Amino acid sequence: MLRSGTFHVGYQGVPGAYSYLAMKQYFAGCTLTAEAYPSFDDVVEAVKEGSIQYGVLPIENSSTGGITTVYDLIRHNDINIVGEKIVKVEHCLLVCPGTRLEEVRKVYSHPQGLAQCHAFFKAHPELAECPYTNTAKAAQFVSGQKDHSLAAIAGAQAAEPYGLEVLLRGIQTNQSNYTRFVIVSRQAEIPPEANKITLVVSLPHKPGSLYHVLGHFEQHGINMTNIESRPIEGRPWEYFFHMDITGHLNDAAVQAALAGLSLENARYKLLGNYVADGSGSV
Amino acid sequence: MLRSGTFHVGYQGVPGAYSYLAMKQYFAGCTLTAEAYPSFDDVVEAVKEGSIQYGVLPIENSSTGGITTVYDLIRHNDINIVGEKIVKVEHCLLVCPGTRLEEVRKVYSHPQGLAQCHAFFKAHPELAECPYTNTAKAAQFVSGQKDHSLAAIAGAQAAEPYGLEVLLRGIQTNQSNYTRFVIVSRQAEIPPEANKITLVVSLPHKPGSLYHVLGHFEQHGINMTNIESRPIEGRPWEYFFHMDITGHLNDAAVQAALAGLSLENARYKLLGNYVADGSGSV
Repeated sequence: MLRSGTFHVGYQGVPGAYSYLAMKQYFAGCTLTAEAYPSFDDVVEAVKEGSIQYGVLPIENSSTGGITTVYDLIRHNDINIVGEKIVKVEHCLLVCPGTRLEEVRKVYSHPQGLAQCHAFFKAHPELAECPYTNTAKAAQFVSGQKDHSLAAIAGAQAAEPYGLEVLLRGIQTNQSNYTRFVIVSRQAEIPPEANKITLVVSLPHKPGSLYHVLGHFEQHGINMTNIESRPIEGRPWEYFFHMDITGHLNDAAVQAALAGLSLENARYKLLGNYVADGSGSV
Repeated sequence: MLRSGTFHVGYQGVPGAYSYLAMKQYFAGCTLTAEAYPSFDDVVEAVKEGSIQYGVLPIENSSTGGITTVYDLIRHNDINIVGEKIVKVEHCLLVCPGTRLEEVRKVYSHPQGLAQCHAFFKAHPELAECPYTNTAKAAQFVSGQKDHSLAAIAGAQAAEPYGLEVLLRGIQTNQSNYTRFVIVSRQAEIPPEANKITLVVSLPHKPGSLYHVLGHFEQHGINMTNIESRPIEGRPWEYFFHMDITGHLNDAAVQAALAGLSLENARYKLLGNYVADGSGSV
């Protein structure tokens, strides 16, 4: 999708984080004023009060599944998904300019970043794994030390903001790890070419409820691309669903299927109707 | 469920980790020889080669969703789920004996553990957050320093192995965060009282497949307690499902529903049939 203009956008983390990369890629070609926030809650708060136009939040990872807290934040705060961006997690070894691999002794990253490169560390027993707050902050720290014995594991996008060099690229063990980010705003925005709908559906507490709800999608030829059940807190055996379906809210088939949900006493909340990102495989 | 005997069990992490707590609770009343492994893969490998009888692995978290890598490890290595244990994530401030809160200045934990206590840190701006490899290793580190200005955030179960004291309990912001662990073994073990079945189901690539599959569960009165779709790597638009259903493989209704899956050209793999843990709310 082509986007142009000047936007004021917020993300969680610091420059060089994967959220920052998703933002850069989604808004490629636009003029951006970017704000970094310490937590997902802070991004959502800033979107709600209008101090930023858009927020960028991770919602699903191909290795660890849906990020329930982000779904919950969107749902509880009545904000809207207006786009998505799928980003490949590709860890790099970042060093101060001129550093050679033989000089490196300590490698800083988020513990998960270190764990995701366990084959690399097995092949390099001379490297000590040093946990840090997150991947991009590890890059920032290494940059500040100006020491050739230090390196950081982070995405390539963390090199430029901190004046580091990419010494090795793609050192993660799993070569197909993707994170899906959503772009959220206070106002719903549904372009004519929108082709993906994200819903949260809660069902009456009786066996077969999900079956009957899916029947309405089936009957109207609507494809479901994602479903995840979540327990309802404090009510064992009751659950709601995050679902992605294909289509536009103005399609007669989508409207008929959603009307069918009401017949089943299912309640749904529309989180957004937007253009699917075709660039990844989550 | 009552268990007794002597068992040789492995888990990922170090003594005092949440996996360690799940193991202790599941095998309460038994004599245990416990082995700690650095990664999930190592636990699975040890189960496969028979150097331990059982492994304990996290499979689902109420905040972050299903742990896909663990499902994949179980599926690809042909091992079996023989039980489950749901554990509440309850972070504590652990200190060297005799330490008072006013003395503490630096708090060590996994970055996620620190983030999960953000309200606590907001209320205590005098405390510096120090990232560490994991919660239990942070406890081990603080124990070794014998310094009253240091504390760790970890579960209460990390106090005893490292000779620390619980100074504050339940300091996490979200009071209902649970992790579901599964107990795995090389041999399938299905007790007569088993009432929960975990399946991985892959469906033919056509709209409505899931609907038709669920129809067989509906028809035979089988409850589904969990479902999560996962993309099939390299095949966009195709996906498989992790599902939990209620029942025993010897129930006629379960057998009829599973037979129905074959009629829909769905393929399934049984990961286990075991006794549901009634103690938590995942």
